[in-house]
Amino acid sequence: MSTTVPALSTSKAGSPFERITLERRDLRSNDVRIDIRYAGICHSDIHQARDEWGVALFPMTPGHEIIGTVAEVGPDVTAHRVGDVVGVGCFVDSCLECEACRDGEEQFCSRGVVQTYAQKDYQGGVTYGGYSRGIVVRDHFVLKIPDGVDLAATTPLLCAGITTYAPLKRYGVGPGVKVGVIGMGGLGHVAVKIAAALGAEVSVLSRTDSKKEDGLAFGAEHYYATEDGSAFDRLAGHFDVLVNTVGAGIPLDKFLGTLGRGGTMVNLGAPSDALEIPAFALLAMRRAVAGSMVGGLEQTQEMLDFCAEHGITATIELISADRVDEYYEKVVSGAVRYRAVIDTDTLGTAAS
Amino acid sequence: MSTTVPALSTSKAGSPFERITLERRDLRSNDVRIDIRYAGICHSDIHQARDEWGVALFPMTPGHEIIGTVAEVGPDVTAHRVGDVVGVGCFVDSCLECEACRDGEEQFCSRGVVQTYAQKDYQGGVTYGGYSRGIVVRDHFVLKIPDGVDLAATTPLLCAGITTYAPLKRYGVGPGVKVGVIGMGGLGHVAVKIAAALGAEVSVLSRTDSKKEDGLAFGAEHYYATEDGSAFDRLAGHFDVLVNTVGAGIPLDKFLGTLGRGGTMVNLGAPSDALEIPAFALLAMRRAVAGSMVGGLEQTQEMLDFCAEHGITATIELISADRVDEYYEKVVSGAVRYRAVIDTDTLGTAAS
Repeated sequence: MSTTVPALSTSKAGSPFERITLERRDLRSNDVRIDIRYAGICHSDIHQARDEWGVALFPMTPGHEIIGTVAEVGPDVTAHRVGDVVGVGCFVDSCLECEACRDGEEQFCSRGVVQTYAQKDYQGGVTYGGYSRGIVVRDHFVLKIPDGVDLAATTPLLCAGITTYAPLKRYGVGPGVKVGVIGMGGLGHVAVKIAAALGAEVSVLSRTDSKKEDGLAFGAEHYYATEDGSAFDRLAGHFDVLVNTVGAGIPLDKFLGTLGRGGTMVNLGAPSDALEIPAFALLAMRRAVAGSMVGGLEQTQEMLDFCAEHGITATIELISADRVDEYYEKVVSGAVRYRAVIDTDTLGTAAS
Repeated sequence: MSTTVPALSTSKAGSPFERITLERRDLRSNDVRIDIRYAGICHSDIHQARDEWGVALFPMTPGHEIIGTVAEVGPDVTAHRVGDVVGVGCFVDSCLECEACRDGEEQFCSRGVVQTYAQKDYQGGVTYGGYSRGIVVRDHFVLKIPDGVDLAATTPLLCAGITTYAPLKRYGVGPGVKVGVIGMGGLGHVAVKIAAALGAEVSVLSRTDSKKEDGLAFGAEHYYATEDGSAFDRLAGHFDVLVNTVGAGIPLDKFLGTLGRGGTMVNLGAPSDALEIPAFALLAMRRAVAGSMVGGLEQTQEMLDFCAEHGITATIELISADRVDEYYEKVVSGAVRYRAVIDTDTLGTAAS
């Protein structure tokens, strides 16, 4: 039986959100119906809602950081039960047969991973995301939320957590490793917390000193304001890993100069302008610039368990559904401390 | 006792080479005097002789691919004896105490490695390279040339060999690994031979079909002409490692699209223009773009031994000293098949 749920929707690029009623599909045998309690606002929601990547589908209900309670399961679902607290991240289906899927990197599925919103699914429908009171998701793509965590503040980990955890693990971040986090917004502040919990020596590289107190509280040992340029000289050749959470408009060559021998800058943002990278900056000290894009289901579960164990959540502002447009502006201007999460109860109940 | 040797020298950026007499230093206790027999012409010699990197020192005697015979050793030298056939590569001194030196990566010495030519050394002198009949080099920086190899054709391995061998090893090239070599000139043709000898499945990505027969003879299994663009579609997501030996002017985004999940493009060239890399090309499939710069002494010896064991040399044109200017033009236009080596006997004998 399909159900209808209240949701936010934007009808075209940049339009304000409206309250609508969304129909969720009938449960398939391996589906989980989730009553959504919280949905995070990720910067990529804004890129998509404004069609800044040129791949948006409208009308759109964004949201790929989702926590809720299992309301119903299909007959073949064994991993989740009614009443379980669960999460959904950036994607809701993949082929599960290709090499990437078998390797636990569903995000790189050769058939094309189905993103949680604004994408055609394998059945010819379109996906609608977490800015709603309910969603139906294939069981493999539903994550277990560990007991006892702050649910609202854990919600952003479904994207920001795995997006930072995956490259930190891939590039061997741990004790003795010097990590620089460029930008301390939604992604960056989670990167600081996770890298510190992994035992690394963490530095924040932020434009100004305005977030210094917070950065140190999040676990950074050092905090450098980069706007006057002097930090680049002091930090020449210093870092093993740089986590770049800033989309664009930073002097990449100067940041690369802070990487030591064999160091890697991992880019997590997706600016539409090309990265301008001097070839010499890579040759010297055999540095690398890499990209990373979320992580697979198994690693996302590992990240959630790791964060629960280490008491890590995002630092959030919990907002009502009618403030999403306002918070989009605040995200873009960098005014949110540090991630906005929608209390989806404020969407009310569906008409039907 | 210092000695004088005939050499080629260029007096300012872009000037033709002249025959001069060069004074080589008195032997220090750990020095090796080498009678040079062959010197390779590397593309970076041309960048330096034309001051295209803005760091040249004139007058300049280039040459950092050197093979010769030991003529004399200082009293503390134990690893080399008079009469040994030895090689010298891209650098002739480093501190040997810093972390990079201790790790066998003298090229990244924190004091600053002393390059074989056109650089100030630690004693306040200037280095002059292999386009000469003799050189004096600190013992640590002198390599053993395995018995029985073709000396002239082995000479380019001192730079082109280690420059390609080091990243191939670093990125795990071996059986089952798909390697694409972009550009098949001096560096590229050696990369093909070494990658094939390491057991990888090697493809050449060259602009035209003109080098196809050679590429397959060098050990490539596949050869793709890229100028009409169709190869990029066929090769989407195909390679594990791309070795980019082309300095500039290629569509990096299209080449990056041929890398599979977690693949790395290693850049060996040093164009003065910045690399333009779309952020999405890295995020998608978590690709990386890295730089690599020659290799340390221990790995260079390993490479020389590996090449001797596998019968690998460069494919060369042996030229006389009076054709260097002509061959600089031929290197730049891509007309050399595939590396020019100067027979330094043709420099004659010194006046003194």
